[in-house]
Amino acid sequence: MLKISSSQNSQVKEAIKLQNRRRRDETGLFLIEGYRELSRALKGGVTIQKLFTCPKMFLGENEPSLIQAIEEMGGAAFECTPAVFRKLSYRDRPDGLLAIAVQMRSSLGLLKSQMSDTPLLVVAEGIEKPGNLGSIMRSADGVGADGVIVADRCTDIYNPNVVRASVGTLFTLPVIEANGGEIYLWLKEHGIRVIATSPDAEREFTEGDLRGPLAIVVGTEQLGLSEMWLKAADTTVSIPMHGTADSLNVATATTLLLYEVLRQRKPGQTHGTDPLR
Amino acid sequence: MLKISSSQNSQVKEAIKLQNRRRRDETGLFLIEGYRELSRALKGGVTIQKLFTCPKMFLGENEPSLIQAIEEMGGAAFECTPAVFRKLSYRDRPDGLLAIAVQMRSSLGLLKSQMSDTPLLVVAEGIEKPGNLGSIMRSADGVGADGVIVADRCTDIYNPNVVRASVGTLFTLPVIEANGGEIYLWLKEHGIRVIATSPDAEREFTEGDLRGPLAIVVGTEQLGLSEMWLKAADTTVSIPMHGTADSLNVATATTLLLYEVLRQRKPGQTHGTDPLR
Repeated sequence: MLKISSSQNSQVKEAIKLQNRRRRDETGLFLIEGYRELSRALKGGVTIQKLFTCPKMFLGENEPSLIQAIEEMGGAAFECTPAVFRKLSYRDRPDGLLAIAVQMRSSLGLLKSQMSDTPLLVVAEGIEKPGNLGSIMRSADGVGADGVIVADRCTDIYNPNVVRASVGTLFTLPVIEANGGEIYLWLKEHGIRVIATSPDAEREFTEGDLRGPLAIVVGTEQLGLSEMWLKAADTTVSIPMHGTADSLNVATATTLLLYEVLRQRKPGQTHGTDPLR
Repeated sequence: MLKISSSQNSQVKEAIKLQNRRRRDETGLFLIEGYRELSRALKGGVTIQKLFTCPKMFLGENEPSLIQAIEEMGGAAFECTPAVFRKLSYRDRPDGLLAIAVQMRSSLGLLKSQMSDTPLLVVAEGIEKPGNLGSIMRSADGVGADGVIVADRCTDIYNPNVVRASVGTLFTLPVIEANGGEIYLWLKEHGIRVIATSPDAEREFTEGDLRGPLAIVVGTEQLGLSEMWLKAADTTVSIPMHGTADSLNVATATTLLLYEVLRQRKPGQTHGTDPLR
């Protein structure tokens, strides 16, 4: 394996540049750091172009087989000194693995072919914080959702902090970027009900009917959902707020709805078909 | 109002130093930024020592009355140029208000006197990321919980990012720091049941009985709950995971449990008294 002992190495410099969104957009490449995230990337069929390793930082014993798998699929592996690796890493606790990978591009058409008969989707509109977007993906993966659709993106899905907060579920879950109007028409066309949250909704989320094919639509941290999506919603539900704040964190609110769908889909559970209380 | 036009001003330098934990520990002071957060701090009885303002950055019309309220309670207000304020601010979108405030110290004894008859508490053990700790507080406020107990702290609760992620609920919700053993004995003494999550639990969280006085205990992002708390738990429940990841974000998982408590406490809802399925 080629060794890198200088942080002035051109490969290292190129990797660091990919922390910048513009560079990611220009090259179609992005960064994946961490054993868990890289394993999920391989599972999800992501192409790894280059892999930087630092064996002194490895936390487990399976790193060599992961490195071998990446090399067998054509990825070039480099061994770095700890000083060089720390320059590359964007984590508090580097685990000695960081890769340059090729961005995947999915589409609504592709999502259609991958969906279950009763799809459960998240539409995330204009989310600004990478941590929130990644956390939404992680929760969507948790309930076994069919995909996350990023509407009118603010944060690109290949931001290193999205990858990290998603703990790599970004690679195994269908994630699509599209514009709001296009998504809305596609949902209508496929008979997928739009569920929005609003503090003004009459029903609480545990009382709204969340069965059947549906898309949970959530908006920006600052302003919530746009007018278009509030109007487009087939069902609007509220999350009860009993304290001084008037809303929850967006990833947290999304997760509540996703797990409520899961609960309602189980046999014998209460759901929203009772008359409005 | 005194004006500050140089970022070399000693008041400005002192405020910037408070971004550092050691300085907060030494002085017993901390920073609060933002209109919403400062309003909640006033509501929660926090003492504001100094207030830095930048009228050009104000987003609303209520800032002058907030400033007046702070001055009437003895806070010294300064007007900064935008350049100086940007040096002070730790936000992406400063809104022209940042204060130095005095840390409050609560205790389990004080919490006892503030609790409802059927307390609902969160015990957060060793949370590392300020954003997660703040988000847990925001959700605890959302369900009207009786308090958040920070066990064996990693992040101090006055970290600027805790304040921000809590959207100021830190000031209106009882938040206590204590060590694990002390908390455990206190919970037992007051007949408060300990609920933990574990992937190995037989019951899912929607099936465990989450009524009555209880404390939801959650552990670190990396390692989850310590052995002590896993053993101390009266009821252990799982969160179903249907994707590739094996856990949710800790703030998200906490929120699911808190809102499930709220659901089960409503009349006519299903809860965990059914025989184990």
